[in-house]
Amino acid sequence: MKVLAVNAGSSSLKFQVYEMPEEKVLISGLFERIGIDGSYTIKYQGEKNKKDVSLPTHKEAVQILIEELKNYHVVEDMAELKGVGHRVVHGGDKYADSVLITDEVVKVLEDLVPLAPLHNPANITVINVFRELVPEATQVAVFDTGFHQTMPIENYLYPVPYEWYEKYSVRKYGFHGTSHKYVSKRCQELLGKDDAKIIVCHIGNGGSISAIKDGKCIDTSMGLSPNAGIMMGTRAGDIDSSMILYMKNNAGMSVEEIDNALNKKSGLLGISGVSSDSRDIEDGVKEGNERCALAQKMYVRKIVNYIAQYYVLLGGADAICFTAGVGENSKGTRSDIISSLACLGIKIDPVKNDVRGEETLISTEDSTCKVYIIPTDEEVMIARDTYAFAQK
Amino acid sequence: MKVLAVNAGSSSLKFQVYEMPEEKVLISGLFERIGIDGSYTIKYQGEKNKKDVSLPTHKEAVQILIEELKNYHVVEDMAELKGVGHRVVHGGDKYADSVLITDEVVKVLEDLVPLAPLHNPANITVINVFRELVPEATQVAVFDTGFHQTMPIENYLYPVPYEWYEKYSVRKYGFHGTSHKYVSKRCQELLGKDDAKIIVCHIGNGGSISAIKDGKCIDTSMGLSPNAGIMMGTRAGDIDSSMILYMKNNAGMSVEEIDNALNKKSGLLGISGVSSDSRDIEDGVKEGNERCALAQKMYVRKIVNYIAQYYVLLGGADAICFTAGVGENSKGTRSDIISSLACLGIKIDPVKNDVRGEETLISTEDSTCKVYIIPTDEEVMIARDTYAFAQK
Repeated sequence: MKVLAVNAGSSSLKFQVYEMPEEKVLISGLFERIGIDGSYTIKYQGEKNKKDVSLPTHKEAVQILIEELKNYHVVEDMAELKGVGHRVVHGGDKYADSVLITDEVVKVLEDLVPLAPLHNPANITVINVFRELVPEATQVAVFDTGFHQTMPIENYLYPVPYEWYEKYSVRKYGFHGTSHKYVSKRCQELLGKDDAKIIVCHIGNGGSISAIKDGKCIDTSMGLSPNAGIMMGTRAGDIDSSMILYMKNNAGMSVEEIDNALNKKSGLLGISGVSSDSRDIEDGVKEGNERCALAQKMYVRKIVNYIAQYYVLLGGADAICFTAGVGENSKGTRSDIISSLACLGIKIDPVKNDVRGEETLISTEDSTCKVYIIPTDEEVMIARDTYAFAQK
Repeated sequence: MKVLAVNAGSSSLKFQVYEMPEEKVLISGLFERIGIDGSYTIKYQGEKNKKDVSLPTHKEAVQILIEELKNYHVVEDMAELKGVGHRVVHGGDKYADSVLITDEVVKVLEDLVPLAPLHNPANITVINVFRELVPEATQVAVFDTGFHQTMPIENYLYPVPYEWYEKYSVRKYGFHGTSHKYVSKRCQELLGKDDAKIIVCHIGNGGSISAIKDGKCIDTSMGLSPNAGIMMGTRAGDIDSSMILYMKNNAGMSVEEIDNALNKKSGLLGISGVSSDSRDIEDGVKEGNERCALAQKMYVRKIVNYIAQYYVLLGGADAICFTAGVGENSKGTRSDIISSLACLGIKIDPVKNDVRGEETLISTEDSTCKVYIIPTDEEVMIARDTYAFAQK
């Protein structure tokens, strides 16, 4: 059965077509700069093909996608595509699991726009286009927030007026749930232990840490929004919230401008002044750039702080897992993080750690806790959930 | 030598007169509801005396204070009062130590008002009144932020645009410094170890945690403002800062209203809906009030999160110290906190823990880290620093 996994951003659309249940990727691609000018890249049987085209809206991207699936003979007829799975950023507290998309579900996603004003609108647009152009396919929504819905109330509530939760749904939701689920599940398999206590460090351009026990998320570092928790490429993560009123009063910025700066001009970029990309920061450190060194120190410390919290929250950990861009590829950052945890008896082997993007056990034999690199695969999780619904 | 320690709030003024260097309290008192209606309480030789009087400004409070010192024969002539030490909330990054008050210092305190708009103005008013009415006395400012000035830059900087630090002094300052200094110093003495690694939990109506090494503060939970870090009586502490824009857009509140709610209607009060006082929360828990139980769980967790972070930051700890209202008096909260740290091998003895407000070692013999109750004494620290300057 052929299933399409779709991940739409505000100006992008990533896709992969799977043959299920084999989980074989038949074709994949990325549409970029939608609403600006437009281009797309298709990856098929090891070859990449890039084209510039006009992409005024997501609809044109989906139309081209459908044409290309036929051109590459991935499908001869769109009826062969039995399922379309959509990554949806925010499911609020409505959806702990993936859901079959109906009119009612679309309505709920629209109601949730205030919680994810940058992300849910693009998701809804693309869902509507697919429902129109491929009406026969089973459409499934897979939520970034879903896996975190098992958090206990004392961990998802903020110490703010209780009515903010009741009236305005102010609470911690968490994001990157599909990745945390995939990685922690894979880690359980590697450990051969269903009740394992696992800390997943999803560190990429965005980043979040989760504490997982018995396969369930207990706590996570992102919050009401994705701009909470650890320091990220351009996002600040946790700060003193009084800073907003302070900057409004003292720098003459509007709250919207401040929020924009905290999302797009902060994190590694804000401190280094050089780049949001951790590879550039590491190069800067090597070249003796002090602001890059400062950014890297802060970046590592924020991650270590969450690992320390979650280690204690879980009552010790069976494993720490690194995933996503930085987690999978930066041996330096992994090494800096784990060496800061020495007092907990956690150690990695520098030789085993000298690897990029490969599932590897990098801890030493005598480490009190196993440390893994587990490359994430959110797309296959979307395909699996979609396949499950399409079979019904 | 007689020295006066003064702690002025926006509508209050607390004082103690010490005979130095014996550190003997000769008289103490509290002026309340300044600018509202007014009353004051004097404590002298074990007796308390309360009077209602008109207190339109802090000046009348200081005038009465001076009269009462003569009435009680603490001094026969104000010339006997050699020093007046003032607690000042915010010293910015200008003052790491206490300072002799000059015109220039007062000017700096005025420049720092944007950083502490609720606190520094009252401090400045009272300093000016004392300089006018007791011109011969040595006036000293003792800063709440001073002790934390030793934090390394990677711990005091926020991951926000670097120019916010350069242009607007946006950084972590920390507060309760005099208490963290007093308690950690006392703990060093008890341990007989100058390079001890100490975590101080100052938990009262406000609250902050500090990590101290070699007698120096390495990190602390309060930040740019005192509304950061752990959950407090009415303050939220750490939250997702995106909540401010979210509430502005969705609840129609102004940023000032949101900030006010985060300072005065959050924390234990916000979650329980019952009280900001941890004793009321504990009573509520005993009576089966679910919201009180939730508030207590959250309160303990936020404190434990910081202890965990600082334990790892310090590379293990020699001691954890509890101080201030809750820390000194609530055996239940201490017990809840330490039992959450079991995986670090930290344990307290329930019999030793059954104590209020007394310097006590409460950890078990086999605990990996000592746990103390150390009642704080910010006033004696003010008196000591003032005495040191007055002797010069």
